Amino acid sequence: MLNINGKRLRQSLEIMAEIGATPGGGVQRLSLTDEDKAAREQIISWMREVELDVKVDEMGNIFGIRNGRNNDLSPVMTGSHCDTQPKGGRFDGILGVIGGLEVLRILHENNIETQRPVILAVWTNEEGFRFSPAMVSSGVWAGKLELEWAYRRTDLTGAKLGDELERIGYKGDMPAVSRPIYAHYELHIEQGPILEKENKTIGVPKGVLCLHWYDVYIEGEANQVGPTPMAGRHDALCAASEMILKVNELPSKMGGNMVATVGEIHNMPNSRNIIPDKVHFTVDIRSWDDVFALKAWENLRGSFINIADARGCQLKTEISWRVEHALFNQELARKILEKAGKRNYSSLYMVSGAGHDASYINQVAPTSMIFVPSIGGRSHVEVEDTKWEDCEAGANVLLDCIIDSSMEI
Amino acid sequence: MLNINGKRLRQSLEIMAEIGATPGGGVQRLSLTDEDKAAREQIISWMREVELDVKVDEMGNIFGIRNGRNNDLSPVMTGSHCDTQPKGGRFDGILGVIGGLEVLRILHENNIETQRPVILAVWTNEEGFRFSPAMVSSGVWAGKLELEWAYRRTDLTGAKLGDELERIGYKGDMPAVSRPIYAHYELHIEQGPILEKENKTIGVPKGVLCLHWYDVYIEGEANQVGPTPMAGRHDALCAASEMILKVNELPSKMGGNMVATVGEIHNMPNSRNIIPDKVHFTVDIRSWDDVFALKAWENLRGSFINIADARGCQLKTEISWRVEHALFNQELARKILEKAGKRNYSSLYMVSGAGHDASYINQVAPTSMIFVPSIGGRSHVEVEDTKWEDCEAGANVLLDCIIDSSMEI
Repeated sequence: MLNINGKRLRQSLEIMAEIGATPGGGVQRLSLTDEDKAAREQIISWMREVELDVKVDEMGNIFGIRNGRNNDLSPVMTGSHCDTQPKGGRFDGILGVIGGLEVLRILHENNIETQRPVILAVWTNEEGFRFSPAMVSSGVWAGKLELEWAYRRTDLTGAKLGDELERIGYKGDMPAVSRPIYAHYELHIEQGPILEKENKTIGVPKGVLCLHWYDVYIEGEANQVGPTPMAGRHDALCAASEMILKVNELPSKMGGNMVATVGEIHNMPNSRNIIPDKVHFTVDIRSWDDVFALKAWENLRGSFINIADARGCQLKTEISWRVEHALFNQELARKILEKAGKRNYSSLYMVSGAGHDASYINQVAPTSMIFVPSIGGRSHVEVEDTKWEDCEAGANVLLDCIIDSSMEI
Repeated sequence: MLNINGKRLRQSLEIMAEIGATPGGGVQRLSLTDEDKAAREQIISWMREVELDVKVDEMGNIFGIRNGRNNDLSPVMTGSHCDTQPKGGRFDGILGVIGGLEVLRILHENNIETQRPVILAVWTNEEGFRFSPAMVSSGVWAGKLELEWAYRRTDLTGAKLGDELERIGYKGDMPAVSRPIYAHYELHIEQGPILEKENKTIGVPKGVLCLHWYDVYIEGEANQVGPTPMAGRHDALCAASEMILKVNELPSKMGGNMVATVGEIHNMPNSRNIIPDKVHFTVDIRSWDDVFALKAWENLRGSFINIADARGCQLKTEISWRVEHALFNQELARKILEKAGKRNYSSLYMVSGAGHDASYINQVAPTSMIFVPSIGGRSHVEVEDTKWEDCEAGANVLLDCIIDSSMEI
């Protein structure tokens, strides 16, 4: 049985962790920044070392292609992303890229000839922090989002995704359009506490929760705080505070499998002696049950209207993004569980709370994911961590699955 | 009886409103910016037109001095500030400067010889938005704040007050130290709804509410929102939301004369798919009763500790600034009421919720204020407005008071 090179996997991950390293021990490599560009160039140079044919599409997605015996057969694909959250971690995304690279290194140095081509993919702007929404490039690739619309996504400074792709030299010629894929595997850290709590090494998600994003805008009335009596104020931040607590209470009130979060808030004019008149905040709702998540929003919207009315504020809500829950390919999931078992890795069949590029790819090709434990369940933070032996275990299972699938005719 | 020139007062105010004019009809002239510098230069050129001797002190405070018959007598002073809030209004501060200027123009063109010198003062950084705290320069002048400490105040970009004073050329040589003042009057818009509601033209505050500023820092735990169950989260923004509502509810719960406000909040990392781990917000408490305001903070702090504990968050609170309630000079207040009566202006003896440079000056010299109504009680916003006839009325009362006081031996 072939094994990936755990030492080399770690070394490559450590090199990647230096690109955009933060003083707090994490990584900040926001999408399409110079750090992102540097990471891409490192990855491409490694792809070339193992003789992959490197292609970049119109969305900046990078594909490193290794020929099979019969290139008319649809390829097996793996990969993830190299962008991070602000002050993010050293594993989210990049583990799936370097894990996949390590698989291709093993195939290369052992001269393994697969039946099918094998592709290592790096997806642009998965995180959605700099350019909302998340997973935008796999979304375009899967035909679920429009290319021109994606190009027009702007960051907080007004820079456009399309222009930034061009600036860093990653607006490729190849159409960002899916083609038949035989099987797609994405190796990723769990980003939650379940595997660690259950003391399992490998997680296999049956699918990804639905993901609904909303934007809420409140308008009250600004005034000097001193001479303005409490009665008759229209304080937009107080209205927002009530709403944020409603979001936080909702999952336990409604029961069922759901999380709801306000992660982002903008308060205006944000001066300590002026009553806030404008607040914008976001709502993120996720559940395995799409209808339940929609009901949750209706419930929240009703509360928001009452709160805004009671405080004499105007309310505007927007649906920014809705991705349905995705059931991954169960045959591939069974294969992963079986391969983990053969290596005596403990495993857990679970759900994924986080969105992944795999969610969009799953809509056009048989897809599954391999999770490894996140220490303390921490992710999207500088202290995000995963044991090296777990990274190695995940990459070994990925190796087994890719060899298996790419040999199938 | 002399009258100020209402048309000229309006014209001068309109010229000032163009310096830092906002598209929304307001003014943004943050302290020590190029707009502030332009405003200062306009004011100084007008001061010179009426032959005032212009001096600038180490804090950038500008003094336009008109000699009296006996310059050994302590002078009568008036004035206010020319900086504004972001997207602020056309009257806050500048009315007191231009109103005072108009008084000096009248003295000048009528060749009135006063016994005492008369000074028009323009105080640096009254608003406290760019550099916290507010009223910092009158505070230094009155000996209540340290000069070097004031120089070290930094804005959000890290620029220091002392360096910015130098940059715009307003770090003067004259020590920023008070000298004996016979009487000080500050004309100002009310910034609240009382005069309008009571249908009065002139307000005379018996004093200014105490003003207590606090900074609250909450630290929770950041995590990817999707895979992190609701139970066990340490969401700093939820903790902050509960605290903000406690602040808002407090005045009605405790009763008495008090306002309490959260105007400013900073949420980190402020990404829609990360549970917020750090929140900083401000608390502003004002009351006529200092002890009551201190009790209010103790009450709040207790609530904050409980809220932070319940959510597993760390809490740090800081006392940023405390100014005691200030009783103005009651002899001067009576004079203002009497002068208003002689002109058949309706008047109201009231309190001031807003802090003013007059609060610090009041600590070293007999001081009082003249308020004119704010339309709709709106202030610190672009729609801030006061009727021209009310501006004129206020300036006329100021004229009468200054002539009266400056003739006293």
